[in-house]
Amino acid sequence: MIASAAATSTGQHGEFEIQATAAYGAGFEVLAVEGHARRGRLILRHGTVETPVFMPVGTHGTVKAILPASLREMGAQIVLGNTFHLWLRPGLDVLQRFGGLHGFMGWAGPILTDSGGFQVWSLSGAAQISEEGAKFASPVNGDKRLLTPEISMQIQRTLNSDVVMQLDECTPFEAHGHLTTELEARHSMELSLRWAARCKTEFTRLENPNALFGIVQGGMFEHLREASLESLVEMDLAGYAVGGVSVGEPKEEMLRIMAHTPHRLPAHKPRYLMGVGTPENVVEGVAQGVDMFDCVLPTRNGRNGHLFTRYGDLRIRNARYQTDDRPVDESCACQCCEGFSRAYLHHLDRCGEMLGPMLASLHNLHYYVNLMREVREALDARRFAAFRKQFEADRARGVA
Amino acid sequence: MIASAAATSTGQHGEFEIQATAAYGAGFEVLAVEGHARRGRLILRHGTVETPVFMPVGTHGTVKAILPASLREMGAQIVLGNTFHLWLRPGLDVLQRFGGLHGFMGWAGPILTDSGGFQVWSLSGAAQISEEGAKFASPVNGDKRLLTPEISMQIQRTLNSDVVMQLDECTPFEAHGHLTTELEARHSMELSLRWAARCKTEFTRLENPNALFGIVQGGMFEHLREASLESLVEMDLAGYAVGGVSVGEPKEEMLRIMAHTPHRLPAHKPRYLMGVGTPENVVEGVAQGVDMFDCVLPTRNGRNGHLFTRYGDLRIRNARYQTDDRPVDESCACQCCEGFSRAYLHHLDRCGEMLGPMLASLHNLHYYVNLMREVREALDARRFAAFRKQFEADRARGVA
Repeated sequence: MIASAAATSTGQHGEFEIQATAAYGAGFEVLAVEGHARRGRLILRHGTVETPVFMPVGTHGTVKAILPASLREMGAQIVLGNTFHLWLRPGLDVLQRFGGLHGFMGWAGPILTDSGGFQVWSLSGAAQISEEGAKFASPVNGDKRLLTPEISMQIQRTLNSDVVMQLDECTPFEAHGHLTTELEARHSMELSLRWAARCKTEFTRLENPNALFGIVQGGMFEHLREASLESLVEMDLAGYAVGGVSVGEPKEEMLRIMAHTPHRLPAHKPRYLMGVGTPENVVEGVAQGVDMFDCVLPTRNGRNGHLFTRYGDLRIRNARYQTDDRPVDESCACQCCEGFSRAYLHHLDRCGEMLGPMLASLHNLHYYVNLMREVREALDARRFAAFRKQFEADRARGVA
Repeated sequence: MIASAAATSTGQHGEFEIQATAAYGAGFEVLAVEGHARRGRLILRHGTVETPVFMPVGTHGTVKAILPASLREMGAQIVLGNTFHLWLRPGLDVLQRFGGLHGFMGWAGPILTDSGGFQVWSLSGAAQISEEGAKFASPVNGDKRLLTPEISMQIQRTLNSDVVMQLDECTPFEAHGHLTTELEARHSMELSLRWAARCKTEFTRLENPNALFGIVQGGMFEHLREASLESLVEMDLAGYAVGGVSVGEPKEEMLRIMAHTPHRLPAHKPRYLMGVGTPENVVEGVAQGVDMFDCVLPTRNGRNGHLFTRYGDLRIRNARYQTDDRPVDESCACQCCEGFSRAYLHHLDRCGEMLGPMLASLHNLHYYVNLMREVREALDARRFAAFRKQFEADRARGVA
C-alpha cells in the first residue's frame, strides 16, 4: 500500500527507491525485557543513550533556563530540538556555520529533532495542507513558508541531529468542532505514510549518516494505527515513534493507544512516544514497551512553580511553604534540593526572581532524569513491576 | 560636633556611650600601596576578602539569574544584600529561622548589607523623614512602615551580614526642581551623622559581632564631606563608605568627589564607594584609594544584552552578531565565553530565552570579578599605573 502511495507522491520529487540494506545511523540493543518493558541501549553518532530515556526539550536550541553543563551534570543523555523554530530562528545559514545544532547550542551529546510538522499545525493557525506539504505564515515575521517532507529532511540534515523525525500530519483528537472521524484519521494517516516515504528518499539522497524515525499515526483508531505501523515497518526505518497522543484526548483514550501501539512496534528498533508526559504516564509508557520520551512538563511546570517530587507534586507558591526549611524533595540529590529550601524557592517566586524558575527547572529535569535512572536500574534487576507499584504508591502519598 | 549631635538624637533611644575599645568584626590589612591605590585584605566572620573587590548585588537574597555556585566558581568573594527588600520579603521571621541571610540564600561567604535607607528614598516615593527615621508605605502591600537607625541595626543583626551599613540619608544631587543647596546638604549630612551615632549604640547594644561601616555624605560640597568624615572617624567605626555618589550627578561632579573623599578616609580601615560603577569608574576608584565597590550594572546590563569586554562594550542585539561565531570576549575564561558564541547569544536574545540573560549576567559578573583580580595582581607587582593605562587604552579600542 505504501509503495504505491510513495510512488504517487514522489513522482514530482525524484524516483522512490527502497534501500535493500539501509545504513542506519543508529544501533539498538535490547538488554533486558520484563513484560512489554525493555531496558535498551541506543548508539547514535554523538553518543550512547541508555533506555528507557527522557529527553529534555530545547525548543530554540536551549533547554529553557538550563545550562548545557547542568544537563550533563544531572545525567541527561539526549536533548530534543524543534526543527520549525530553528528553521525560522536563527535560520539555516547560521546553523550551517556551526556545523549544525550541537556546536551552536554547546551540547556535544545526541540530539533528536522533530520534523517541524507539529508546530506548523499548532502555531501557525491557518496552515494550508496539501499533498506537497504545508504552507504557513511565519509567526516571527509573517513570511510565507512551505514545509515539505524534503525540506524537513534538508533542515534536519543541516541541524545534523542524531535522530531525524519524518514529517507527518499530527491527527488531532478533535477539529472543526467534532471528534476526528475515522475517514479523516485515515486520510491524515495515509498522507503521513506518503510523506514518510518521501522523507526516506530525501534522507537517503542527502546521504544523511544519522537515524530516521517514522511516526505511527491513525488517531484513536486501532486498526488505522496497525495499518500505519505495518507500512512504516516495511520502510525499514531506524526507529519508530507513536504520534498523535497527548493532543487533547481524555486520559483513558491516551492509555488505550499507549496499551495498543508501542509493543506492536518492531522489537529490535527503538520506540519513541512523542510528547508524553507526566511521571505516571512515562512509567506507564515504559510498561507498554516505550524506550524514549520527551515532554515540556518539567521545564514549563518549573517556570510556573509546579515541582515534581517522589511523593507527589508541590506548588511552591502555596503559603504553607513560606517558612518551610526543608528541600523540595528530601530524597533528591539535585543542586536545588542540596542547596536551597522550599522557603527560599517560595521567596524567589514571590519576588519574581529568575533564580526561581532556574532552580525549579533544574529540579524537575533532574527528577525526570533520575526517575528514568531508577526505571533502568529496576529493569536491570528484573524488578520493574515492583518498582512501578512502589513508584505509584509513593507518588499518590502526597508531599509532607 | 558629632558628640553633641549624638547625645541629642539618642536621648530618646537610650544612653549614648563611646566604646573605648570597640570590638570590630573586621580585620583589615594594607598589603601594598601605589599612589592612593591600595592592595588590601579584609577579614570578616564568613571569610577573607582580597581588596580591591567588586561585590555582586543580590537585592532579594539572589544575585539575579546566577547560582551561588557560579559566583564561587568565578571567584566572587562577597555579595551584597538589600536590607529594605529582605525586611519586606521574606521578612525577619523567615530569615531568623535560617540564622540569617547566608543560610537562606545558600551563600556561605561574606555578605554586606546596606541600611535600607537608599531604597526608602528611591522606591517609596513619599517617605516622611524625621529625626526619628523614615516613614513609608511598603511597595509590596502598602503597609505603613517605620525605618529608624535602631530598626536598621536590628534587621541587619537578624540578617547576620558581615558588614553592616549605618542608616543614612542619601543626599540627592537635585530634588524639588533644584540642585541640592549647601544648607540642604549640610542638614542631610548632619542627620546622617546623628543616625550613625544611634546605629553604633544599637549595634553595640545588640552585641553584633560583625563590622559596622559609616557613610560619608555632604553632597557635592567638599567641606561638608570633610566635616562628615571627621565626625565619623571620631566614632571609630570598622570601615567607611562614600555615599551620595552616582545619584544622578554629571560625570565630572562624580569624579571630583571620588578625587576628594576616598584617600582622606583612615588608611588602616577599609573604604567602600557605594553604587559605583562602570569598569572605568571602578578602576578610577581604585586609583583614588577605594577598596570595595558594588553596582547593579553587570547584572542589569546583562539582562539587557549589554556585555562588558576587555575591548569595550558590546550590544548583543546588534544585527552584526547574528552570524558571529566568536565568543563575547576572546580573552575571557568565563563559562559563557568558553562555551558559546556571539551568534548564539544573539539568537537567545531574539527568542527571549532565559539562558540569554543567564549567560550575559555570568559573563558580566566574571568580567568585573576578573578585572579586580587583574587590579590586585597589578598592585601586588607595583605596576598599577601601567595596568590602568593599558586598561583604558584597551577599553577605548572598541570591540572587533
